[in-house]
Amino acid sequence: MLAPPPRNWVYFLNSAAEELRHSAQISARRTHYVVESSVVVRGESVASMVAGAELTRLFCDSPIAGLNDVLLAGSSQHLQYANAAQRDHLAAVSAKEFSAGATTRAVIIPIRKNAAWWRLAHDERLAFFNPSPGKEGHTTIGERYAGRIFRQLLHARYDAAKPPYDFVTYFEFNEADTSAFTALLGELRDETLNPEWRYVEMEQEFWLRKVG
Amino acid sequence: MLAPPPRNWVYFLNSAAEELRHSAQISARRTHYVVESSVVVRGESVASMVAGAELTRLFCDSPIAGLNDVLLAGSSQHLQYANAAQRDHLAAVSAKEFSAGATTRAVIIPIRKNAAWWRLAHDERLAFFNPSPGKEGHTTIGERYAGRIFRQLLHARYDAAKPPYDFVTYFEFNEADTSAFTALLGELRDETLNPEWRYVEMEQEFWLRKVG
Repeated sequence: MLAPPPRNWVYFLNSAAEELRHSAQISARRTHYVVESSVVVRGESVASMVAGAELTRLFCDSPIAGLNDVLLAGSSQHLQYANAAQRDHLAAVSAKEFSAGATTRAVIIPIRKNAAWWRLAHDERLAFFNPSPGKEGHTTIGERYAGRIFRQLLHARYDAAKPPYDFVTYFEFNEADTSAFTALLGELRDETLNPEWRYVEMEQEFWLRKVG
Repeated sequence: MLAPPPRNWVYFLNSAAEELRHSAQISARRTHYVVESSVVVRGESVASMVAGAELTRLFCDSPIAGLNDVLLAGSSQHLQYANAAQRDHLAAVSAKEFSAGATTRAVIIPIRKNAAWWRLAHDERLAFFNPSPGKEGHTTIGERYAGRIFRQLLHARYDAAKPPYDFVTYFEFNEADTSAFTALLGELRDETLNPEWRYVEMEQEFWLRKVG
């Protein structure tokens, strides 16, 4: 029997949060960041991170009950749109997580889709991920960048905390690939190339340095 | 703009639970049941309900933080396998929730699937729901009973409480249709008709009367 797929619960907290001062007993992999900037792309701001502030990520195998001061959080889930060929191709070509360092950038983008999206049946949503005449679609766009940009999708829509975002998307790359990353964002947001984005009603970017 | 799809959080509690004595302030639709029997079908028992005990369902528009004494709980989510034609057909033909009464039965079946299921890509899981030569599949089996048996699927796999079940499936029917319901269960569990069931590692039935 193969190992079960990993299930992770991920929490981003301001490093100065009172919660973290007392969190030594929490079993988690800790990653440290410095905030460079934040940009409201669509809709409202769902979290506040000031340039220069320190941020900590707790990467856990189990959820942490009653954690306070959380800025953004989500959990990994089973694949909802990738088919077996796409899953295997992405596993073969995708960049791994980058080491912390002066040239390692991380970007966190919480996203909320509108009610019309969630009313769609599965085949209607899936069609947006694959190519069709006149549009490239989310999966094909993403595959072109997978070798240079580490990606992780966290789900939040069904969290009991009911946050104002459905997903926390997380990226890492070498700063030399910053223009590739902004090109990826531009293509995903191009509603001709990727009509899925018509359903995005809130999107906010947090640009970080991964320092430890 | 159409209304968003309903999102409901559902909690089943022993009616004698201390929590319920103090729950008057919880905004929920309350439904009352009497337990008739429980059956461990596969795997371990995940909840205990004694014959004759009273059970209460809290049906909520928002999650309830810190609710204790919960026997089973889950939330409604977006469609993960139904295509638009199946969704529309089921909406047209499906039985509505039944009124409480002496002839109204309810059955709750928590289910957990194994790690191999959750490792599958989406197209691999979807294939189990649709017919193919030699097998009918989950969706087609279910459609034949949808007019007589009210069904609701609740998800629990990603709850922060990390319960030992992935789904809480809930059914209601008139006791005159009991044999139809047991036929439905038999067909879903027939691994030739429905090979999906090879991945089910825990399944327990709770048979109830819906009394109020």
